[in-house]
Amino acid sequence: MSATETAKSNDDSRAPANGKAKPNIAFIGLGNMGAPMAENLLKAGYTLSVYDLSAEATQRLQQAGARVADSPKAAADNAQVVISMLPAGKHVHSVYLGDKGLLSDLPKGTLVIDSSTIAADDARTVADAATKLGIDFLDAPVSGGTGGAIAGSLTFIVGGSTEAFARAEPILATMGKNVFHAGDHGAGQVAKICNNMLLGILMAGTAEAINLGVKNGLDPKVLSDIMLQSSGRNWTLEVYNPYPQVMENVPSSNGYKGGFMTKLMQKDLNLAMKNAQDIEVDTPMGAKATELYEAHTVENGDKDFSSIMGRYDRSLLS
Amino acid sequence: MSATETAKSNDDSRAPANGKAKPNIAFIGLGNMGAPMAENLLKAGYTLSVYDLSAEATQRLQQAGARVADSPKAAADNAQVVISMLPAGKHVHSVYLGDKGLLSDLPKGTLVIDSSTIAADDARTVADAATKLGIDFLDAPVSGGTGGAIAGSLTFIVGGSTEAFARAEPILATMGKNVFHAGDHGAGQVAKICNNMLLGILMAGTAEAINLGVKNGLDPKVLSDIMLQSSGRNWTLEVYNPYPQVMENVPSSNGYKGGFMTKLMQKDLNLAMKNAQDIEVDTPMGAKATELYEAHTVENGDKDFSSIMGRYDRSLLS
Repeated sequence: MSATETAKSNDDSRAPANGKAKPNIAFIGLGNMGAPMAENLLKAGYTLSVYDLSAEATQRLQQAGARVADSPKAAADNAQVVISMLPAGKHVHSVYLGDKGLLSDLPKGTLVIDSSTIAADDARTVADAATKLGIDFLDAPVSGGTGGAIAGSLTFIVGGSTEAFARAEPILATMGKNVFHAGDHGAGQVAKICNNMLLGILMAGTAEAINLGVKNGLDPKVLSDIMLQSSGRNWTLEVYNPYPQVMENVPSSNGYKGGFMTKLMQKDLNLAMKNAQDIEVDTPMGAKATELYEAHTVENGDKDFSSIMGRYDRSLLS
Repeated sequence: MSATETAKSNDDSRAPANGKAKPNIAFIGLGNMGAPMAENLLKAGYTLSVYDLSAEATQRLQQAGARVADSPKAAADNAQVVISMLPAGKHVHSVYLGDKGLLSDLPKGTLVIDSSTIAADDARTVADAATKLGIDFLDAPVSGGTGGAIAGSLTFIVGGSTEAFARAEPILATMGKNVFHAGDHGAGQVAKICNNMLLGILMAGTAEAINLGVKNGLDPKVLSDIMLQSSGRNWTLEVYNPYPQVMENVPSSNGYKGGFMTKLMQKDLNLAMKNAQDIEVDTPMGAKATELYEAHTVENGDKDFSSIMGRYDRSLLS
């Protein structure tokens, strides 16, 4: 068994693999991630109806060619596919479940793709309800941040049936560079929190190693170059060095602005810790990273998560 | 300022860059690392005299063409360069320092390269004593393990003067693929412990993330593939996956035999912790990794360090 990966096609106007016309899509949640994702669907030629609480957000999509609906149900009218990108599990619950939830209104055979990052248990709850109604549900959280959402280079990590995955793949490929099938319902969320827990560990550990070298008199760029080509190599040293001015065009060289906010890393770490507690799995490294990010979030929640560097050297935050 | 890197030359018989004849080299310490390193110098055409306490070790080098000496001083006779590869700081002290130490016997201008992994302070102590006697000293610890020593693909991380580094470079390039100049005396040791502290954090963190996924029902290979192509990517996922049977030809797929022993990782983590305490730098992630490896070493010191996977799932150690 191995991960299924789909390369992004450059031919945005291609027909779906099954030769049928492109499905109509309802897109719910037009935040920093959802809005550019929806725009990339429009650019790829999909017919889109959108819903968001914010009039500003919907207006932007309307200008880009989407039909604006005044409720999730109205958006889903005549849609064969529903995609949602919401802040947290409670929003996903509220949109899909209960008497007033969207699921009860969708025709059988609708494909629902939730790209929100939520607890695996919450994803499974919605998936179970959907399955009972004959609706295909996928949890499909992303990595790659707002930059990836704009560029259409996100990574989608998908949980659900093989059939539903195959239906979703060409659609997700218009918004992302990599589309992985992680396993059954909830597996997308699990893989995402495992990855992001590891990312939190890598970022804090890398900041700590660079700080130890600098305090010993080493040049941060020289040390970073050495570790990048040694066994300390990791994603943060490759593309996201947390020490200011070691790399260009990264948040650390721009006052830790932009990027992936500390409070969002903190949210993902908390999801991982909650899951680990629920299934009684020990995560001492993840717990230490969570502790560091928890303390760091208090004053730096809106800064990029590489600002954990400042936890080791406060002078770098000023 | 950036790291100076030298690619390994395929022309092992080339003359030194300065056009002079190759220097005679004394090699002290023929353990699992030192013996293959010395053999690679012989293959490259250097004249070598060697010393080790073990007759078995010296015999092997004699067969490969080295002259065997019965003391470090006898080995250094007529050598312009001395290289040592010793287990710990106390051995380096004992070989080089004091009235009976090697330094007092070496002619001015001798180049001494110590590739042992020892405390930066110990390296600086020997370097200071050498400098006073007009001897060029370099701390040049390696990464790459016994496999890298045999293949001649080690990474050398070097501390000392630019001039001494330039003299050493062609010699080190016959034993390694990358030769970095990290900074002044001690900087090689500092960069090495920073890298290996980070490696300990990466390995424990990666094992922990894979275990969390597996306990949630994910396939370890699928999850590893996803993280490898996402922001959790790191050296362990690239070439050294700690979960059995995810990769071929790694210690985890061979009962955690071979590779880099847990007790050696533990030694490097302890060096990092000692240094951090000495200069009062906080290393919470490194301290947590040290704690995990300390407990793991008790029963698994001779297993490869990726066996920390078994700390999360004991069934993988049997």
